[in-house]
Amino acid sequence: MEIEVLQKRLSKALNVVSRVAASTRAGLPILSNVLLRAEEKQLTLMATNLELATVEYVNAETKSNGTITVPAKLMAEFVNNLPSDETIKLKAKGDKLTISAGKYKSTINGILADDFPELPEIDEKTAVKFSIDVDMFKEAVSEVIIAASNDTTRPALTGVFFNTFEGALYIAATDGYRLADRKFVNDVKSEVKAIIPTAALREVLSSLSDNMENVEILVTDEQIRFRMGEVEITSKLIDASFPDYRQLIPKDSKATLILDKAEVIRMTKVAALFARESGGSVVCEAKADAGTFSIYAVASEIGENSSDIEVEVPEDGKVVLNSRYLLDAINATTENKISFSFSGKLAPVVIKNEKSDEYTHIIMPLKS
Amino acid sequence: MEIEVLQKRLSKALNVVSRVAASTRAGLPILSNVLLRAEEKQLTLMATNLELATVEYVNAETKSNGTITVPAKLMAEFVNNLPSDETIKLKAKGDKLTISAGKYKSTINGILADDFPELPEIDEKTAVKFSIDVDMFKEAVSEVIIAASNDTTRPALTGVFFNTFEGALYIAATDGYRLADRKFVNDVKSEVKAIIPTAALREVLSSLSDNMENVEILVTDEQIRFRMGEVEITSKLIDASFPDYRQLIPKDSKATLILDKAEVIRMTKVAALFARESGGSVVCEAKADAGTFSIYAVASEIGENSSDIEVEVPEDGKVVLNSRYLLDAINATTENKISFSFSGKLAPVVIKNEKSDEYTHIIMPLKS
Repeated sequence: MEIEVLQKRLSKALNVVSRVAASTRAGLPILSNVLLRAEEKQLTLMATNLELATVEYVNAETKSNGTITVPAKLMAEFVNNLPSDETIKLKAKGDKLTISAGKYKSTINGILADDFPELPEIDEKTAVKFSIDVDMFKEAVSEVIIAASNDTTRPALTGVFFNTFEGALYIAATDGYRLADRKFVNDVKSEVKAIIPTAALREVLSSLSDNMENVEILVTDEQIRFRMGEVEITSKLIDASFPDYRQLIPKDSKATLILDKAEVIRMTKVAALFARESGGSVVCEAKADAGTFSIYAVASEIGENSSDIEVEVPEDGKVVLNSRYLLDAINATTENKISFSFSGKLAPVVIKNEKSDEYTHIIMPLKS
Repeated sequence: MEIEVLQKRLSKALNVVSRVAASTRAGLPILSNVLLRAEEKQLTLMATNLELATVEYVNAETKSNGTITVPAKLMAEFVNNLPSDETIKLKAKGDKLTISAGKYKSTINGILADDFPELPEIDEKTAVKFSIDVDMFKEAVSEVIIAASNDTTRPALTGVFFNTFEGALYIAATDGYRLADRKFVNDVKSEVKAIIPTAALREVLSSLSDNMENVEILVTDEQIRFRMGEVEITSKLIDASFPDYRQLIPKDSKATLILDKAEVIRMTKVAALFARESGGSVVCEAKADAGTFSIYAVASEIGENSSDIEVEVPEDGKVVLNSRYLLDAINATTENKISFSFSGKLAPVVIKNEKSDEYTHIIMPLKS
């Protein structure tokens, strides 16, 4: 193969695919490589960790077609260091790739492309398709992914559940202690139930750039593909069943407070400083008569603290929460005010935006 | 004690002193504390790790004088999280400090100030004094400190040597493999020979802020004090003798090349990628006939590389250098072009700015 590419474009593409090449845990050296394929007017870069594959297409001047694989990190670092206005020449011969640009030249020892594993394929004809605005995608996925679990003994909880309900697509995640649910796409005709590994969604989030407008999503029974700009990320789905989470969301609560988002974040952070001995648990207390809401650490050897705000409180309440979960939930809201609903010491707390109903975050209280 | 301070000022001061409190390795809990002293119209914050002490003065409304010590990190984090336009009230009673600001209130358990170690004192009358422009201080110290050693078995080399020579003050550091020397202050009357711990200089660098103009330096036989704005840092000197480093700097070299700084940095970085197996050693080669200078990795299993630039070369030369040392040295220069002088395979390489003669960096070659 022999092909010419702009440094700027090649560097960007290599940075995207080399992340996936670096993530491999399978121990196969070739998985740390990027597969380069020169075809007419196009260079394709591919990397996979067997769960997940990234493909990126770059415009190029092709002199001769061909393929090779080379260590992704080394090639990315080499190309990143070249001047951004250079045209880079790639020339493969056997298992060696020569990269040259002006004064700079290197020959990297690679591996023949024949040994590269097959990338996960998807049948685009039978797949269910959605298209989502990039900003909306970013916001919604970021709001939900925080509630997913890292515990691989319960695989279903390590992913984000894409599911249709009453004609809309929702995404949800839970680790058993908290749950986030967000309406994702309206007016959906097909049925979807798919658990997407968080690693795939994180990869999509990292690959988004300003020049992209939409994320196209294609789902089949076993795979999901995200296509945005010149990047395509394909992942296996998690083969497990997600809990029936809708029944966990309280239909109504005893009391709902409307709180200033910035203020509650500050109150929680300050209380968390004094909650280190108690594993980060803080008390949220609402007093109807006084009309106050306060957050403080349960008990602490290092000192005491309290912060009170005045607010309309329909009913007294006291609940102990993990301060990190509380911060995550509030940070994920997008309006200036949040609604904070509670029903009793052991009933889940529901956090939403004040006005919009599309995002719901629930947190299970700790026993005090 | 009872005193009122602006959040903005208190937060900044706490961040400076809490760095020193966090650096303690002596295992005494009180060293992690900040000592607060309320006096007329002023709050003084102090922290020490026994080697080094930081003192910061903050304007304040004092209601009653007094002292207390509290955990520096906890207090800093608490105050950092308070709104920046608040006035903060500090009230000490016994070993407890109550901090309140609007809706926020905390009581931190501290330790009585009587138990706080004495801070290193300096006799300002007998001290030698210098005053240096902040930007100049930053530049010069950053250029030299990179060559200091981390090897505590040779204490002299772990510091920066302040020394007068022919009526000027120079600062120098060496780890035995490289040496950096910089003219620091002109027209100096007194004699100075003092080795300053790099930790103290790093602390001074971190404490510099935009509103400061000069760094005042006071040196005695055993201590050094840096005073800038409202911050005062005092450190013990290293009690050792610095090698007679001037004799290590070559008087002249066989050949001197004038090289573009950005280009040599790029060439070195690219060669370093291929030099991982050889511990980062790269070959610098100059050819007089071809008029080229090139940098490449010595030998590599992962591939080969080379980069050549055209330049006037008075004499052939080839020298093997540690790529990290080379990068450090070039990055420390301030002009767009550097002078690169060599004399043979085993003679030290001298790197300077093209025009200014104030900064000299020498690197010992590796055996190839």
